[in-house]
Amino acid sequence: MKIRRSERLIDMTHYLLENPHKLISLTYFAKRYESAKSSISEDLAIVKKTFQERGTGILNTIPGAAGGVIFIPMITKEAAKEYIEKLSERLSEQDRLLPGGYVYLSDLLGDPELLRQIGRIIASNYLDKKIDAVMTIATKGVPIAQAVSYYLNVPFVIVRRDSKITEGSTVSVNYVSGSSERIEKMELSKRSLKRGSRVLVVDDFMKGGGTINGMQSLIEEFEAELVGVTVLAEGNFKGKRAIADYNSLLFVESVDTQTKTIEVVPGNYFND
Amino acid sequence: MKIRRSERLIDMTHYLLENPHKLISLTYFAKRYESAKSSISEDLAIVKKTFQERGTGILNTIPGAAGGVIFIPMITKEAAKEYIEKLSERLSEQDRLLPGGYVYLSDLLGDPELLRQIGRIIASNYLDKKIDAVMTIATKGVPIAQAVSYYLNVPFVIVRRDSKITEGSTVSVNYVSGSSERIEKMELSKRSLKRGSRVLVVDDFMKGGGTINGMQSLIEEFEAELVGVTVLAEGNFKGKRAIADYNSLLFVESVDTQTKTIEVVPGNYFND
Repeated sequence: MKIRRSERLIDMTHYLLENPHKLISLTYFAKRYESAKSSISEDLAIVKKTFQERGTGILNTIPGAAGGVIFIPMITKEAAKEYIEKLSERLSEQDRLLPGGYVYLSDLLGDPELLRQIGRIIASNYLDKKIDAVMTIATKGVPIAQAVSYYLNVPFVIVRRDSKITEGSTVSVNYVSGSSERIEKMELSKRSLKRGSRVLVVDDFMKGGGTINGMQSLIEEFEAELVGVTVLAEGNFKGKRAIADYNSLLFVESVDTQTKTIEVVPGNYFND
Repeated sequence: MKIRRSERLIDMTHYLLENPHKLISLTYFAKRYESAKSSISEDLAIVKKTFQERGTGILNTIPGAAGGVIFIPMITKEAAKEYIEKLSERLSEQDRLLPGGYVYLSDLLGDPELLRQIGRIIASNYLDKKIDAVMTIATKGVPIAQAVSYYLNVPFVIVRRDSKITEGSTVSVNYVSGSSERIEKMELSKRSLKRGSRVLVVDDFMKGGGTINGMQSLIEEFEAELVGVTVLAEGNFKGKRAIADYNSLLFVESVDTQTKTIEVVPGNYFND
């Protein structure tokens, strides 16, 4: 039985969404649906138009014999801002304040819908950049790295503060932890990052930027290249940050343990 | 301009895939596409048929005024087995063997394509069960928990061996670590799990089952309920396991540090 266009469109959409940033040839789809390449081209034109209109992402067409399509997931700046504004309100809830002025974030970092959005928003910032790996530090950064990795379709690597026997040989660097001004150590499994890799660093929270700075040194040790830094939230910090160039989705403007209030606004990701 | 069926099918597929296990009313789609409910019903019938034929998942139709559709992602046992067999081969690679007989897994746990498949396979095992949360222990289990959480669309919670100041109040239990026979402690943030929650436990690797057993005690402390346990890989273990009822996707049959060989086969998930 011949596969109808409607069925092709549904399955094609599913396939593209599960294989972002990957070149898929027309031949692949033609075989998958036992259909002529001309029909597949028409299908893809409809998918492209719908993805664009609905803000799902960009479907790039690569012409020629070695060509095909590449799906690049994205979110518009407006939709991202709307989402982050709602998230700021959620974060400003009073009962998030912990002793010492810390903010409780663990529920958010375990929420699949939120992680999907955060991943899509961060990935959208690097549409035109080549990225080979996403890097973060254990443990809070991991869900964010994974979320971004799903959309960029590249591996994520986890830097650790404590050595694990199951990591094999590691490379370590010392760094100054911003909050405590102490010298600490972080390390990464030797085989987890190839020389020359282009790396995006993500984390949940940044204050002085010492941890991010440590990851930058680690990237240099691996003779790899830092492409960008995006954190979910940055805190208010008096003094010079260890890192100058970064993006934040949220900015924790103030934390008042006396009145138990937290003020959170969208971060510099949304500055023009 | 009227929205055509082809565009509706593409966007509907995207929407359903991003909102698994969630009741979506016909009214929602009718508004989203400015179309009659009768057209939406026809669209959904086509989506349902295609999802079924391609093994994408089940689209359940709930009739009545409060009804709608629920998309349940799944993978067939055959497709899962095929995937896991290939993974077994990848795991049997010689250079994965670390000193002490440990197996290097970090690259796999940072691979988005692999995590998507693992998540889909584990979630497929609990299609007919009500699950409120996925639980794991830091740090290696986290990517698996997140992957499963994406498909079940429920939050994941992370048990920790070391207390963090950013977790707020915690509940802790002692457990016997299988490998070292030592008494250790694990804890979970008090507000991360509601009483009565139905919990699925996942982890990367299980030997004696002591860690899983600890999580079971923790679930009891929270007056919650254990629905099931699935680990990515189980190791060969002589003696009685601390936990009887579990599923494993992979079984590490033998590790020989002398000949540097690892034998990995599909786990008990595939036993009939």
